[in-house]
Amino acid sequence: AHPLTPDWVQDAVFYQIFPDRFARSGRVTGLNLQPWGDPPHFHRYMGGDLWGVIEKLDVLRNLGVNALYFCPVFQSASNHRYHTHDYYQVDPMLGGNEALRHLLDEAHARGMRVVLDGVFNHASRGFFQFNDLLEQGEASAYRDWFHVQGWPLQPYDDTRPANYAAWWDNRALPKFNTTHPAVREFLWDVAEYWIRFGIDGWRLDVPNEIDDDSFWQEFRRRVKRLNPDAYIVGEIWGDAHRWLQGDQFDAVMNYHFTRPCLAFFGARTLNHEMNERSGMGRVDPMSAEAFAARMTEVTQMYHPEIVRAQLNLLDSHDTARYLSAVGGDATAHRLALTFQFTYPGAPCLYYGDEIGLPGGPDPDCRRAFPWDESVWDHATRNHVRTLAAARHASPALQRGDFTVTHAQGEGLVFTRPHASGTAVIAMNCAHEAADLPAPDLHMPGGEAGTYTDVLSGQTFDLSGGVVRVPARGSVVLLRA
Amino acid sequence: AHPLTPDWVQDAVFYQIFPDRFARSGRVTGLNLQPWGDPPHFHRYMGGDLWGVIEKLDVLRNLGVNALYFCPVFQSASNHRYHTHDYYQVDPMLGGNEALRHLLDEAHARGMRVVLDGVFNHASRGFFQFNDLLEQGEASAYRDWFHVQGWPLQPYDDTRPANYAAWWDNRALPKFNTTHPAVREFLWDVAEYWIRFGIDGWRLDVPNEIDDDSFWQEFRRRVKRLNPDAYIVGEIWGDAHRWLQGDQFDAVMNYHFTRPCLAFFGARTLNHEMNERSGMGRVDPMSAEAFAARMTEVTQMYHPEIVRAQLNLLDSHDTARYLSAVGGDATAHRLALTFQFTYPGAPCLYYGDEIGLPGGPDPDCRRAFPWDESVWDHATRNHVRTLAAARHASPALQRGDFTVTHAQGEGLVFTRPHASGTAVIAMNCAHEAADLPAPDLHMPGGEAGTYTDVLSGQTFDLSGGVVRVPARGSVVLLRA
Repeated sequence: AHPLTPDWVQDAVFYQIFPDRFARSGRVTGLNLQPWGDPPHFHRYMGGDLWGVIEKLDVLRNLGVNALYFCPVFQSASNHRYHTHDYYQVDPMLGGNEALRHLLDEAHARGMRVVLDGVFNHASRGFFQFNDLLEQGEASAYRDWFHVQGWPLQPYDDTRPANYAAWWDNRALPKFNTTHPAVREFLWDVAEYWIRFGIDGWRLDVPNEIDDDSFWQEFRRRVKRLNPDAYIVGEIWGDAHRWLQGDQFDAVMNYHFTRPCLAFFGARTLNHEMNERSGMGRVDPMSAEAFAARMTEVTQMYHPEIVRAQLNLLDSHDTARYLSAVGGDATAHRLALTFQFTYPGAPCLYYGDEIGLPGGPDPDCRRAFPWDESVWDHATRNHVRTLAAARHASPALQRGDFTVTHAQGEGLVFTRPHASGTAVIAMNCAHEAADLPAPDLHMPGGEAGTYTDVLSGQTFDLSGGVVRVPARGSVVLLRA
Repeated sequence: AHPLTPDWVQDAVFYQIFPDRFARSGRVTGLNLQPWGDPPHFHRYMGGDLWGVIEKLDVLRNLGVNALYFCPVFQSASNHRYHTHDYYQVDPMLGGNEALRHLLDEAHARGMRVVLDGVFNHASRGFFQFNDLLEQGEASAYRDWFHVQGWPLQPYDDTRPANYAAWWDNRALPKFNTTHPAVREFLWDVAEYWIRFGIDGWRLDVPNEIDDDSFWQEFRRRVKRLNPDAYIVGEIWGDAHRWLQGDQFDAVMNYHFTRPCLAFFGARTLNHEMNERSGMGRVDPMSAEAFAARMTEVTQMYHPEIVRAQLNLLDSHDTARYLSAVGGDATAHRLALTFQFTYPGAPCLYYGDEIGLPGGPDPDCRRAFPWDESVWDHATRNHVRTLAAARHASPALQRGDFTVTHAQGEGLVFTRPHASGTAVIAMNCAHEAADLPAPDLHMPGGEAGTYTDVLSGQTFDLSGGVVRVPARGSVVLLRA
């Protein structure tokens, strides 16, 4: 099958929202919450909700965001909501299905897409059909929906074996028996239900744990039958060829992008201890040569259309925040942001990154968004806004190829050749300004002439053969 | 307040359905069920559903039923569904909200009302907000929704104290903290939601456990604001004056009616051992004199309009079936049915009683309805159909007063005086035919002349002063 991916993803600037921590409208009351902004806790709720997100849509649009990716929003007895209690109900604390209805309408009216997180490998102890096993034992009507190893089940007693299959042996997350026809139909129906409701795609949580191509092939058929433009993006940290043949996912969360960005832009200040405790694991510094080679390789791993639809992230709810992972160096963060917005694939901001919100591994990377603008890092935010605007204005940044023309030490130059005009990006991680070799403008796809740096607004003439790049800075050159 | 009750209840013949056991459509698949008709088990499901009920609506209408009272239908991990998992979802095994939508439409199209069972005192261990306490402990957003005595909660370990308030200390049924504003709003919203959805009333499970008049007063206000004709009937086994002042319930499940009917009509064959194990407890035989005095008293306990709106039952899912409680004597059962349909208040058949389905205490009283008509007791069914038709045709039986004119040994004569014509009922529990004294037809409300016995079709002239009543039989006399 030809790996057709949704065209809109190539134009997208994503913003990942952790719903409990982004914005609280105050419309949902009667809850036991921790104060907004207190240090995050594995178990406590801060009470962010979708009404709150709606109130902030214009702020995000102003930033340049045109796609939202939400961590789970369905009813769940956990602040991250990966423990699904009901797949058909948006959590009442988030405002319920009504709030999502309004959110979709308001987002779509602003030209923004909305992708939800689908957790289909496992449910939770309170999930109705699993709860029936706890309540009724072997007599359960849904006995075959899960993998039971013995009765009675031990759902809450950590001193005994859980005696049922669970994700990473976490008894809070009973694994579905996805070979059971009723379970398959149930999960596919959930996928269809929310596509019909109006979402624009599914981010799939740990989809490799459902070790069954036919499951995901049918998942894709059903989703695409309802909306051929729906985006299906899997959380696959490693090699994803199996799922990117055109018959399963459109793309994956591109952690192959993340790691080199930490290693190169953060080389001087990497917080090793923090990364080792987070989803990233050990990250060693990388030279420009190694970085260029690896990032070139990453653009060649999959079909070009898939590469341009990848979800490129610097961090997520599963890692330390990029800023903290590079030792708090906001300049390194801005360099990485430059690369993220100029590399093939859809950039995905993790909420708060744009204002310099720090955070170590879970739960610290899930802090409440501080809505007091006086504490924001406006330099970073303006940088993101500039980059997003440039990307939206430039077919080369959205759809161009990726060609490294120089990589040495701490200097990197690459182009995004495209029929409409080639973009040139030069990056300098050193502490002194550098004259980096300009690309050969007479090469196929290159053009001589005058360029404008979208970051500084300055004009560049590349015919001299060099590009002057500020210390720990970048130029992003588009044809003037 | 004047105790206004819904007028339609006085015309109603109710039929109580235990949803898992009445009729199975086969439309819901992929379930682990016991075969239809196998002995009931505390934990197993038989898979009756609302689509199945819809298929049988014409059978029930043909019987004379014009109101359905359903044991709980909301999502629940128990075959009786008193352990509510989600108050806003009809159980998927029953066909979900879609099936109830169709059921209401089909029932209403046939002039049938539908009353649902509301279990508002307690939830279940899988109920979302309670499950949050199990999952998140003290950090739960819903910590104050229940009565917690210590952490962590012990939901499934019977060797430790449950450390939270539960109905009858059953840890499967955590009791709501109905003093919490959010809990009150939640429960009232449930009540309103289903009234808006189109149900015709609420049967309230153990409402005395919510020891708070203001809770039920507001419950009534909200329900009646949406539908002044909605029926609110409480499960109160004892004295109910507190709830029947006109500001809480319209009526109660009339177990004051049940017990004397067992004691008098079943006097010769009562199965004491069985009753003592069931919700009824010990029932001692009663003479006609005592029965008449007690049943007269019962008509005077509450305002006449409430008495005419009472839910008069011979048995329920909480008792042995009447037939079994009286030792299997179908004649005694038919005598009791005669009384039930001729006494003030709405008769409520428990599904299967009309075809002579036997059953001891729970779970045996919850057998699957046998749809093979060759095993039905057609004599009893025809008797019920005749009585229901007579009641529908007779304002005296629906709305007349209740006056005993003779009660001695095993003979009972009473009238239902009404402006449209008085009904006369004579009952003889003895094993020989009896000439019982006819009522004084010149008394206020009485009329001389010719009457027809709706049971036999025979004509009676009461001017001779006696009514001949067959052995262990009745005559129900309406003006010819």
